[in-house]
Formats: sequence, structure tokens, C-alpha cells
Amino acid sequence: MSLNDSRKTRALFLGFGNVGREVAKILFEEKQNYPKLKDLNISIVGIITKSHGSLVNQSGVDVPKALRDIRDLGRFSPSSPEFVALSGIEAVRQLDYDALVELTTLSIEERGEPALSHVREALGRGRHVVTANKAPAAFAYQELQDLARNRGVKFLHESTVMDGTPVFNLAKSGLKGCTIRGVSGVLNSTTNFVLSRMEQGESLEASVKVAQKEGFAEADPSHDLEGWDAAAKITVLANALMGASLTPFDVDRNGISLVTVEDAQKAIRSGKRLKLICKAWREDNTVKARVCLEEVEQGHPFAPIRESGSILMIETDLLAPFVITETDPTLRDTAYGVINDLLDLSAGENLP
Amino acid sequence: MSLNDSRKTRALFLGFGNVGREVAKILFEEKQNYPKLKDLNISIVGIITKSHGSLVNQSGVDVPKALRDIRDLGRFSPSSPEFVALSGIEAVRQLDYDALVELTTLSIEERGEPALSHVREALGRGRHVVTANKAPAAFAYQELQDLARNRGVKFLHESTVMDGTPVFNLAKSGLKGCTIRGVSGVLNSTTNFVLSRMEQGESLEASVKVAQKEGFAEADPSHDLEGWDAAAKITVLANALMGASLTPFDVDRNGISLVTVEDAQKAIRSGKRLKLICKAWREDNTVKARVCLEEVEQGHPFAPIRESGSILMIETDLLAPFVITETDPTLRDTAYGVINDLLDLSAGENLP
Repeated sequence: MSLNDSRKTRALFLGFGNVGREVAKILFEEKQNYPKLKDLNISIVGIITKSHGSLVNQSGVDVPKALRDIRDLGRFSPSSPEFVALSGIEAVRQLDYDALVELTTLSIEERGEPALSHVREALGRGRHVVTANKAPAAFAYQELQDLARNRGVKFLHESTVMDGTPVFNLAKSGLKGCTIRGVSGVLNSTTNFVLSRMEQGESLEASVKVAQKEGFAEADPSHDLEGWDAAAKITVLANALMGASLTPFDVDRNGISLVTVEDAQKAIRSGKRLKLICKAWREDNTVKARVCLEEVEQGHPFAPIRESGSILMIETDLLAPFVITETDPTLRDTAYGVINDLLDLSAGENLP
Repeated sequence: MSLNDSRKTRALFLGFGNVGREVAKILFEEKQNYPKLKDLNISIVGIITKSHGSLVNQSGVDVPKALRDIRDLGRFSPSSPEFVALSGIEAVRQLDYDALVELTTLSIEERGEPALSHVREALGRGRHVVTANKAPAAFAYQELQDLARNRGVKFLHESTVMDGTPVFNLAKSGLKGCTIRGVSGVLNSTTNFVLSRMEQGESLEASVKVAQKEGFAEADPSHDLEGWDAAAKITVLANALMGASLTPFDVDRNGISLVTVEDAQKAIRSGKRLKLICKAWREDNTVKARVCLEEVEQGHPFAPIRESGSILMIETDLLAPFVITETDPTLRDTAYGVINDLLDLSAGENLP
């Protein structure tokens, strides 16, 4: 299936939490503020949620009304003519759309489900997939890319790591001809934020509450604190950039649940900082990955990463190691990653 | 003119200094060490130099012999059957090739000549251009891109800024839909290296000598010390990423020639570092640029850049500011930028 500029990309949204709403807000309420978005022509033909109702309209859901209802009623209005009862997998199988935008949340215990089935099904039907959910790429990356290639569609996931800061797009066009030998970084905002505050003497529990209030820690922060979010991210990087076939269960994983204020302050006193570091490397013809709490020296490139920032170092055979740093991300940055992927679908070529 | 995988890209090299030799070495002597280069099929049909002789062979110059002769004789052997007397502009006009690889040195006083004429002529003939020379993009970026677009060919220059670290490729695919509001960074290796050593008490002259010995400062270091190299780099960034039509003469420019050891050490004593900072920003519907010696706080993202490293911050309308850092580059990194551009020509699409 090929899309061209003369018609709209019809998107099906699964999940409509913070990221989905921000994408919709940028594309349907604020688009005129962003001059380079003018050629992005998207119609949302369905928005399926688990607990806020679902909307379907083959000629395009009334997105401004949907956003208003979420703001005013906390859910889609059941009296809307677009309101339907449809599960995610039913929508993926039955509706007509060009691109599935998968924005449900990461599941570890369920090994990526139901997102993995949504993506597999959409690609199998020859539809593009854009996802901010790490699960599909963390649990079945090679299978899904093969399926996409066979069907002539794209499986894109820029915002799964470092929000919209270019990582996968960077590797695709910026590292042509390079073999990536290893990647490492500080990739989980919540744990970095919490560790930064514990250095100042605040307890883990109190720091988590602040992170939740600021909106980047989940209501259930255990995925972050136990290193699962970081493990999923390093898995996606290893799979997408190094050809691995790992799952988050293959990652040698530590979290920060057992760290004390005393630990964090002891590190600072000895001129170091505690960081939850993700790492993937090649060893014996295979790719290994770990998430590990480390004391890094003040001069280390990862030491200055503040609060909710992220940092990634990429090592290759042809190019000296280089580092990408994301500073002070907001929800808009994650939404932008999804929008960048949507632009990839609507343009035949990646133009500047 | 379109290239396909089944035949070679025929390249014409103008200039064969450190960068050209390194490109040739990687592609013709070491290629088997880089598995992802296996599909890059290049034939060099001409190598034109000003003072080391020139070689032409429509079925492909004997590159290993050319490299040996440069090593053993310091020049191409006049007894080689490939040896010719041909100027750069004659070669560009007369030879048959798919891509001009422009590797002559930056000229400021001559406003980019003769490189600018080489590139203009090649694009006008419908040939791709890959260049590591900042001059063409610094003196006539919009004209040359328009010409390339009209002729259906590419004008690529990844290694003009931060060697091969992805900058232009990153912006092309990683920042789709974003308007770049500003760029800033530390982009000249020689001045950063010299300032770092002056902080330790070494004189400007002695530090420059070390930089020359390490191979990244030119024999005539005045372009670096007076900020012209930095001015050319920020001009290329402003033109390519922000749609400007600047030349290096439009840049408000400082150098470091007048800096004393006392200045550098005074900065350090007050918890700061002296950095030669390049900056381009939008103001009143136009783009302005400057190169300025600044004292930055230790906590500033540019402060930790050591010796010959470079750093670039990009600010956009949709994505929070992010930073790319190049650590400890070597000649291979610049050569890689040229190779990445050559891969762009030989593949229809940018594959990972």
C-alpha cells in the first residue's frame, strides 16, 4: 500500500492517554503554529480506548470534539454518533485505515500483549504501524520487521526511546555503512529524577510522588523502579540497532527500589553519582544487554544528566563514539516522535 | 541520473590530502573490515591534485598503487600510464563520472573558489556532488541545492561540520516537520584544543604546535585561530538547516589570537571555561550568526567538551533542545562522513 500527498493518511489510534491526546492536540488544534507540518494530512478514522469509550468514523472522527469531551467529561460522550463498542483487536481487524497508531501501555508480564497482537495483525493486513509502545519492538522486533518488509509497509517506533529525540531515524540515515558495536545510556526519566532528588536527601517515596505529580512517572511506578522500562528500552535498541532478538526477560536487570538516601549521598561525597545505566554490547557473536545501578565519576559523560533528561552513547566500527542528549523533555517530545513517524509514511522520501 | 546497485558509482576525486587518502584507504584497502560497506561499489575514475600529480582511468584508477606511490614517493608516479596533466575544472568538465567528490581546502579570501566552480559545474552537468569542503555550502548553498534539485541529483556535505557525526542526515530524517529555531555549539577542534591547553598554562604558540603535530591543525592555523573555520561551519548550518543565505563574511566573528594564558586561567579560577561558541538564530524574519569567545559556567552543556571534541545543540519548535557530542574524532571520522554520503548515492533509499 502506498500513500501519496494527494490524499489523507487514515490513522487508527489504539489508546488515547497523554501521548495520544498530545498528538491529536498538535495535529488538530495547534497545527497552524508549526509551519513545517502543513503537508501532514491525517484523518483519524477510529480512537479505541479501554475505559474512556471508543469513536469510529470512516470519514474522520471529530477530533476537536473528542478532545473537548475528554477534558470536560473525562471520557468520550456515549451520545456521540461516532461512539461504538469495539475492542482494540476488533478495530484492527475490521476497520479500514492506512496506519495503526499503537499507543497502549507497555506490558511486561503479558509479554507485550495486547499491543503485540494489534501490531502483528495490522502489519499482516498490509497496514503501516507507528507505535510509542515499547512492547512490540521489545518482544518481537525481527518478526515484525520481516512481516512489514514482506507486506511492503513500515513498522516505526521513534518515540519508544528518548521520546522524539532522533535515535532510530538517526541510525537509519546517519550511520549508513556502520556496524553498531554497542549502545549505552541513561534512558529512564523516573529513576534518574528520583536518584537526583535522593542525592539532595529526599526519600525514594517522596521523590516518586513528585515525579508522578510532574506527570512522567506512572501511577504504578514499579516498572520504572524495578528497571523494567529501562530493560524494555535497551531491548528495543539492541534489536533495532544491533540485529538482536532479545526480550526484556533476557536483560540482566537491576532497579533502584533498594537504594537508600545514604547510598545516594555517599556517592556524591566520594565525587560520584548514582545512575541507572542501560547497556548493550556484542560478545561471542551475540548481543547482551543489562540495566545496572552504577556509580559514575563526575567526569563521565553520563554524570551531568539532570532530572528527567536522557543520554545515549553509540559506538560503531567506522565513527568515533558519539552522544545524544535530550534535555528537559515534555509530553510534546513523545508526541513529536509519533508525528515524525507519521510524516515518514506520508512522504515518499525523507525530505528536509 | 539515477544509480542502481548493479553498477558502480564512478567517482571523480578533486584533492587527495588526508581526507581523500583516508576515504581511499577505507574503501580500497580495509573494506573487508567493515561488513556493512560490502554493497558500496565505487570506482574512482580520476584523482586530481594541485601538487602531487593527477591520475585518470575511465575503467578505474589503480587506487592501491596510488596510495602506495603517495606513501613512498610523496606524489603520484609520473611514469604511471594513468598520469595526466589536467586541472580540477577541466576534469570536472571533460571526464565522465557519476559523482564529484570535492576535497580541496576551504578558501575564504577567494570566496570558496575554485571549489565553488567545481561543484557548480558538476551539478550543472547533472552529476552528484559529495564534499568535505565547507566552501560551496558556505558561499552558495541555496543556489547549489536549487541547481541539484533541477538536475535531479544530490549535493551532499555531511562531513563539513563535526566530521562524520550525523548532523545533516540527522536533521533530514530525524527532524521532519520541525522548524529549527537555532543552533549553537563548539565546532572548531583547533581552538578548543588550544584553549584547553592554555588553561593548563601552555602558551598559544606551543599549543598550536601540538595541534599541528596531532594532525588536526593546518600548517597555516590562521583560519582556525581567527574564527574563519568556525564561521564557515556556522554558515553551513544556518544555510542548510535554517534556510539562510549567509556567507562567512556575514558572521559576527571573533577568534582566539589575542587570548592570553592569563585570560584562560582567570576563567578557570572563577569556575568557568573559555569556549569559542558558534551560534545561529532567527531574528526579525532573518537568520543571524556569530562566532564569539565566551566564558561558560562549569554546568553549561558546552563546558565539558575536551580537546578536539565538538558539540552542537539544536533548538526546534516541536522538540525540546537536544545535543550531539562528538568525542575524540580522528581522520577516519571525516572520511566516514564522505562515505556516508557516497552510500546515499548508491542506494535508492536510506536503509538501516
